[in-house]
Amino acid sequence: MTYEVKSLNEECGLFGIWGHPDAAKVTYFGLHSLQHRGQEGAGIVANNSGKLTGHRDLGLIADVFREEKIFDELKGNAAIGHVRYATAGNGSINNIQPFLFNFYDASFGLAHNGNLTNNISLRQNLEMNGAIFHSNSDTEVLMHLIRRSKKVDFMEKVKEALNTVKGGFAYLLMTETELIAALDPNGFRPLAIGQMKNGAYVVASETCALEVVNAEFIRDVKPGEVIIINDDGFKIDRYTEDTQLAICSMEYIYFARPDSNIYGVNVHTARKNMGRTLARENKIDADIVVGVPNSSLSAASGYAEESGLPYELGLVKNQYIQRTFIQPTQELREQGVRMKLSAVRGVVEGKRVVMVDDSIVRGTTSRRIVNLLKEAGAKEVHVVISSPPLKYPCFYGIDIQTRRELIAANHSVEEIREIIGADSLYFLSEQGLIDSIGLQSEEKYSGLCLAYFNGDYPTPLYDYEERYQKSLGEKVSFWEV
Amino acid sequence: MTYEVKSLNEECGLFGIWGHPDAAKVTYFGLHSLQHRGQEGAGIVANNSGKLTGHRDLGLIADVFREEKIFDELKGNAAIGHVRYATAGNGSINNIQPFLFNFYDASFGLAHNGNLTNNISLRQNLEMNGAIFHSNSDTEVLMHLIRRSKKVDFMEKVKEALNTVKGGFAYLLMTETELIAALDPNGFRPLAIGQMKNGAYVVASETCALEVVNAEFIRDVKPGEVIIINDDGFKIDRYTEDTQLAICSMEYIYFARPDSNIYGVNVHTARKNMGRTLARENKIDADIVVGVPNSSLSAASGYAEESGLPYELGLVKNQYIQRTFIQPTQELREQGVRMKLSAVRGVVEGKRVVMVDDSIVRGTTSRRIVNLLKEAGAKEVHVVISSPPLKYPCFYGIDIQTRRELIAANHSVEEIREIIGADSLYFLSEQGLIDSIGLQSEEKYSGLCLAYFNGDYPTPLYDYEERYQKSLGEKVSFWEV
Amino acid sequence: MTYEVKSLNEECGLFGIWGHPDAAKVTYFGLHSLQHRGQEGAGIVANNSGKLTGHRDLGLIADVFREEKIFDELKGNAAIGHVRYATAGNGSINNIQPFLFNFYDASFGLAHNGNLTNNISLRQNLEMNGAIFHSNSDTEVLMHLIRRSKKVDFMEKVKEALNTVKGGFAYLLMTETELIAALDPNGFRPLAIGQMKNGAYVVASETCALEVVNAEFIRDVKPGEVIIINDDGFKIDRYTEDTQLAICSMEYIYFARPDSNIYGVNVHTARKNMGRTLARENKIDADIVVGVPNSSLSAASGYAEESGLPYELGLVKNQYIQRTFIQPTQELREQGVRMKLSAVRGVVEGKRVVMVDDSIVRGTTSRRIVNLLKEAGAKEVHVVISSPPLKYPCFYGIDIQTRRELIAANHSVEEIREIIGADSLYFLSEQGLIDSIGLQSEEKYSGLCLAYFNGDYPTPLYDYEERYQKSLGEKVSFWEV
Amino acid sequence: MTYEVKSLNEECGLFGIWGHPDAAKVTYFGLHSLQHRGQEGAGIVANNSGKLTGHRDLGLIADVFREEKIFDELKGNAAIGHVRYATAGNGSINNIQPFLFNFYDASFGLAHNGNLTNNISLRQNLEMNGAIFHSNSDTEVLMHLIRRSKKVDFMEKVKEALNTVKGGFAYLLMTETELIAALDPNGFRPLAIGQMKNGAYVVASETCALEVVNAEFIRDVKPGEVIIINDDGFKIDRYTEDTQLAICSMEYIYFARPDSNIYGVNVHTARKNMGRTLARENKIDADIVVGVPNSSLSAASGYAEESGLPYELGLVKNQYIQRTFIQPTQELREQGVRMKLSAVRGVVEGKRVVMVDDSIVRGTTSRRIVNLLKEAGAKEVHVVISSPPLKYPCFYGIDIQTRRELIAANHSVEEIREIIGADSLYFLSEQGLIDSIGLQSEEKYSGLCLAYFNGDYPTPLYDYEERYQKSLGEKVSFWEV
Repeated sequence: MTYEVKSLNEECGLFGIWGHPDAAKVTYFGLHSLQHRGQEGAGIVANNSGKLTGHRDLGLIADVFREEKIFDELKGNAAIGHVRYATAGNGSINNIQPFLFNFYDASFGLAHNGNLTNNISLRQNLEMNGAIFHSNSDTEVLMHLIRRSKKVDFMEKVKEALNTVKGGFAYLLMTETELIAALDPNGFRPLAIGQMKNGAYVVASETCALEVVNAEFIRDVKPGEVIIINDDGFKIDRYTEDTQLAICSMEYIYFARPDSNIYGVNVHTARKNMGRTLARENKIDADIVVGVPNSSLSAASGYAEESGLPYELGLVKNQYIQRTFIQPTQELREQGVRMKLSAVRGVVEGKRVVMVDDSIVRGTTSRRIVNLLKEAGAKEVHVVISSPPLKYPCFYGIDIQTRRELIAANHSVEEIREIIGADSLYFLSEQGLIDSIGLQSEEKYSGLCLAYFNGDYPTPLYDYEERYQKSLGEKVSFWEV
Repeated sequence: MTYEVKSLNEECGLFGIWGHPDAAKVTYFGLHSLQHRGQEGAGIVANNSGKLTGHRDLGLIADVFREEKIFDELKGNAAIGHVRYATAGNGSINNIQPFLFNFYDASFGLAHNGNLTNNISLRQNLEMNGAIFHSNSDTEVLMHLIRRSKKVDFMEKVKEALNTVKGGFAYLLMTETELIAALDPNGFRPLAIGQMKNGAYVVASETCALEVVNAEFIRDVKPGEVIIINDDGFKIDRYTEDTQLAICSMEYIYFARPDSNIYGVNVHTARKNMGRTLARENKIDADIVVGVPNSSLSAASGYAEESGLPYELGLVKNQYIQRTFIQPTQELREQGVRMKLSAVRGVVEGKRVVMVDDSIVRGTTSRRIVNLLKEAGAKEVHVVISSPPLKYPCFYGIDIQTRRELIAANHSVEEIREIIGADSLYFLSEQGLIDSIGLQSEEKYSGLCLAYFNGDYPTPLYDYEERYQKSLGEKVSFWEV
Repeated sequence: MTYEVKSLNEECGLFGIWGHPDAAKVTYFGLHSLQHRGQEGAGIVANNSGKLTGHRDLGLIADVFREEKIFDELKGNAAIGHVRYATAGNGSINNIQPFLFNFYDASFGLAHNGNLTNNISLRQNLEMNGAIFHSNSDTEVLMHLIRRSKKVDFMEKVKEALNTVKGGFAYLLMTETELIAALDPNGFRPLAIGQMKNGAYVVASETCALEVVNAEFIRDVKPGEVIIINDDGFKIDRYTEDTQLAICSMEYIYFARPDSNIYGVNVHTARKNMGRTLARENKIDADIVVGVPNSSLSAASGYAEESGLPYELGLVKNQYIQRTFIQPTQELREQGVRMKLSAVRGVVEGKRVVMVDDSIVRGTTSRRIVNLLKEAGAKEVHVVISSPPLKYPCFYGIDIQTRRELIAANHSVEEIREIIGADSLYFLSEQGLIDSIGLQSEEKYSGLCLAYFNGDYPTPLYDYEERYQKSLGEKVSFWEV
Repeated sequence: MTYEVKSLNEECGLFGIWGHPDAAKVTYFGLHSLQHRGQEGAGIVANNSGKLTGHRDLGLIADVFREEKIFDELKGNAAIGHVRYATAGNGSINNIQPFLFNFYDASFGLAHNGNLTNNISLRQNLEMNGAIFHSNSDTEVLMHLIRRSKKVDFMEKVKEALNTVKGGFAYLLMTETELIAALDPNGFRPLAIGQMKNGAYVVASETCALEVVNAEFIRDVKPGEVIIINDDGFKIDRYTEDTQLAICSMEYIYFARPDSNIYGVNVHTARKNMGRTLARENKIDADIVVGVPNSSLSAASGYAEESGLPYELGLVKNQYIQRTFIQPTQELREQGVRMKLSAVRGVVEGKRVVMVDDSIVRGTTSRRIVNLLKEAGAKEVHVVISSPPLKYPCFYGIDIQTRRELIAANHSVEEIREIIGADSLYFLSEQGLIDSIGLQSEEKYSGLCLAYFNGDYPTPLYDYEERYQKSLGEKVSFWEV
């Protein structure tokens, strides 16, 4: 997943805090640990006793907040922050969150992780009624719904709005007097609450952000919940009872940091289990196990332990690859000049290699890595993938919205094996994945969204239904892509 | 070695090429894979049929060459490049290499990796005779020696100069008609030659740079050799017969990339062997093995395999840590807010952990990591170090020039264990290190410089002798540092 | 007016074009000549056959459009542009215009010069009905009014909105199919139409921008008019008949470029006449006439010609003063270290100087310049001001909204003379100003707004009425300011 | 001279100070007033009780010292600074001055204004003896000469070096204990000494820099002098008696700021006299007088006064023209789109205009301005130039080193008139120039270098002799240029 084209992308990370004198700085450090969830832009809105100020820009969090003095403008003991994933060609600062809204009677900060499935129709409807949007983001729609609500009580307005938007969402809303967190009825995106030693409450997309700021984990936010945090503590409320846990399984497989726990399951451990399960599901006669860095190292070590094969560092990722603007020309690429990933000849030469990766999207990356290993002298390359084949688009926050880019939607495992040049190819079974994660849930879906693997979407698709149906008929060969 | 203070630092990486139409670009990609050897600045000098042009600046290679158009000024089919390590407080662009010298009768590019032990006296002597230096770098001195040589033949001038400088050095010298590479009589720094498919010759500090540009490894440059590459091919010459291989053992332990081979020994394999040897040398009753990322992961997996304990991802390094300008205030630090390294609670909680690291310099980092693991619930933390205790300064290119900063110079192993808060502490033995690397060498020193461990310097110390003798008498407690 | 504190500030410049293949570039050059009307930020929205794209940022136009490639994103044969004046402490990119609005059914670009007097109440009213604003600018309100209009025809919506906003405004509105320009019922701000040789229509805040792009002047936009330009040519329409020309007299006195004509009157000529009139109104026994550069040089040369005294370059302005970030410390300032303006000792030493300036706001600048001349050896300094005393705030687009900062609101001419240290002080009379400009107008106000001099506001003050009434009672001495 | 191509360029400005606690800051303000003498780069070297530190970079002084914190590194009570003129295509930071030299036994800062005529041969000779140069600047050579001098006493070394270099030069040399200023034997470049109220001594290229820092003028540095300033005061010494004042007349005509005095003559006054003399030398039947801004405004006002014609602002220069990166394309240029200079239609329409400019180099600029005025409706344009025709190159510091670019070297006045499209054309006579400046000097050359007008060079041309002789034979028509 890490070579040349990063094809699966999360949409955003959230961090919020209430009750710390250095709220914006703590938010900075929290967001820093969530940087893997989005690299296009970042922002923070701070709340200084009811006065909200914000700073946001394109770039990594370290660039956006390069200068200490920016924090002078972000005073206050509460803050929310956001890192945004780069959707191609839309790099406008207007879309960078949190949004800061100033009204004659109130101010709000708002940040969002996820994707609304009825955003297009909601937006059109609002515009027909005079609404003006200032971004392409589907975050803004919630604020319009809140402001136009006829309810009298503010929390009732918020709940009405939350019941109107559909799809996958985790929201952080900063008002002048409280921090509100809300999760969609399926809990597609993770969101956890913790508490710092000084009593400050923290909400974050992943528990790794709690650890980084030394906050103690309290609980995961649950589907349909809306959490209100203010100077009196935190209160759990619901905006709907109609919920069904279906957490995105790709969080465990690929997105989340290995040191995060989601619904009590450690991500590294889940991945290691996926590797173990893979080894049990398929016996391969080989010499060494090599993981594709960095996201597949846990699964690889699990595979190695279970299979008894040695775990080796056969692929090395350049640590300095971020922000490399100069790319090899086509000619240099053909000459084998590469930057991101190197095969370790001294390790793989003459060996039968089990190469563990987390997923295959278009197949081009896998093909390149297999080729890399063979050029470095590997005798055989057996590819094992710690997830089932990706066949269906996601509409809840991952950036695969067409089947055209999914090789497994259009090709059999054997065809894929041939395309990527592997000596054998194995995917983790769906049940193997469910068992490896081992989520304790009595609910349908075993608490996991596996729609990308089996097309079983936990919700209606609304604005995407038509596009989806059309995509089912598409038959695209790899070579056209 | 990777937490908060990076205390051991290499001084620079070299890359040179002769015979490729895109020489500067290939150099860029080569340097990119050597970025770990120096992050302060970078530069390239290109040779366009005798016309030399250069570009250099402070920053990572990706920043220095951020814009494609820079390469328009770096035309030609030969080039040399350099990445420079940041010595504190001296961040002047004047010191960034390669240096480009324009004379009325010739032009030269010059790049250097290493440290001269007689630089101060040579420089003073030259200045007394009218020489003007424009940098603090000890690279410039070679050019002065060449230009002032009374020899008639150019290569004789170069050899005379190489016999005048002492210490550790690898030089790349670009003339209008050839690329010259030279290595000191002890071969302290690695330097390898390879060849691209189109016939271009490549010289690089590490073989990983050969791999990245798809060049085939030909041979290591040997102590006392001077290599001349031009349109007729490459020629091996010597400037001295008085050589004694003593390659820096820290290259194997910590500096070099795991995918590099040095004198035929793969670095990852050497490190894995160090871990295995450690496990054989010391039996520890524990539950899991955790390596300090990234440099100790190989040793940790070796330790795990040899000991039979599971290898776990108990520490996670933030991939986005480079260029983070905002640091936690002292207050936030005390509250436990941290950025670079996280312990994985889900993995280490309740476990007896073997923590594998590559070295202990001042001890502060080790103490913090041990503490991190314990805060995350580790029941016991046993620290094993894949090198002997660092007791003596290095004068050949590593940035430890005083014993004051070396905890092992002043404290027993038991004292260090107590200081860092470990339950037990083991260092690899000197013989264990030599065996793990397994260099085939009949020479004294087993072909390795182990001076930082045992004070046995392979050369006179010249300008540093006095400082060294004084440092032997220093007795500094950890707490003063 | 040009020394240390620039106290009177215009709010913005506009440029629009329809029918030129390089519309955005021509807009750039037009805006460049309007840079004196605003230096905080700039932007351009281009229209490529109905597809609108924009670029805006903080900074001078030359910075905002520093890179040629920005224009690749601004294709199309129509464009509008804006330069914005820096109101203190509000340097957010959100306020930089033109605004670009994207709706499901249409896109618009909108730019504005002026100040609405009922902006606060309109905005509050809109927000109470669910509107969300994204800037502090009073430009956005027009778009909300248009989108919420119940009229069916688009131009009827626009006219309704124009009749709802009050105060001083010149708007440029880019739709997908036309460029619309509108002026408030008093014509407070100048706006002129021209035509390029290729037939393209151009609208600009000042005629100097027409000259720069070699467009022929057609006519001034008149109060209450709305101009529609499209591929069929341009059409003049009105949204109201209730108009009363009252062009801002400060445009002639200080803001506009001397090469611009406003309602047929050349600005340089008007200023020269002000100087002549001043010389006729007050005879001064002196040796030389010196203008404060750059805005008072025309008036000074008029004064010199009429009085027969020689016109001398007794004050020199540093041409490189823009963007100077380092300022003298208080200590250096006291030692007389200065940057912006120098007195020419060789010219003024021993002389009785008539110093011509265009206005006195707080008086601090005048005091410093008088002092500068005296320190350089001037025997006497007689200050003549080419406008009447500034006594009242402006609510139509100039940045003086309180009487507290106006020395003439609180002090007699004799008191001011003493404060600024002049040997004598004369202001131009109101009738002298009217005559010097010589606008051909039968209307009340002689076609000029002189409210800052006499408090006779041509419109109700709406949201500002209360603040204004309060300010009338304020009595502030210079020394408190 | 100011339209589109700036063809005559000064080479650099100098500022030095000894005895002020804020020496670097004062130097900054001094350099700021000398910015017109060079815009390519700037630097300051400060002396903190013998410890020299420096900062230099490409760009305007305001950019190079954009951040206050830079001055934290420039502590000390003495400093020298330099602004450098941009010679085409050589924008390397290596050439930006002052140079800072660190030797084992001493440190020096060195800055230079002028051009050495024997630089090439001196440099080659030094290189043949082992010297290494690090810039293309001819400044470095002086330091090599000083360091290689066999004299014992330091000032004797300096004097020997000053007697070895030939041509035009003003040097500032900062040692650890003193500030040394030296001027060439002809005094081609101006250099003045002043004193601040706190006693600090200041040396600057122009007296305007003294005024800006409120220093009192003491005296001009004279040809052949070397001034030594230290804590004991300042001492005047000489390195040669063989002197002959020949100050560059272009300083009066074009380069220097109008508020500067050179050898007691105020530059504005000299220019006004040139205008008066022109009016006396040639009677023109016209309506108005217009100067080309900014350098010809003084001459134009002199012409107006003497002729009795009104002085009008018929040409306006855009104040924001510096750093404009986007230029009109050829196509837009042909359509008349322009940026720098505008003709004021309201002023010149229907008028017979006397257009005053300071010089004609290639003629292209004059032709454009004449055309501009005619397009704006001028009935006649009579061009009067406040200097004699430029026919010969300069080798002492102005950037005209070939006759090929000088229209007057190849064409008669009548031919030039026709080329530039003027109705008549007059140049100031040589004697008129000498009289207008009115320098009190009994020496040959009347104390002025007029070589560009008459080819009478005050010194041998050394390395340039051959090139000069060749250029005399060149006959190039305007249309080839």
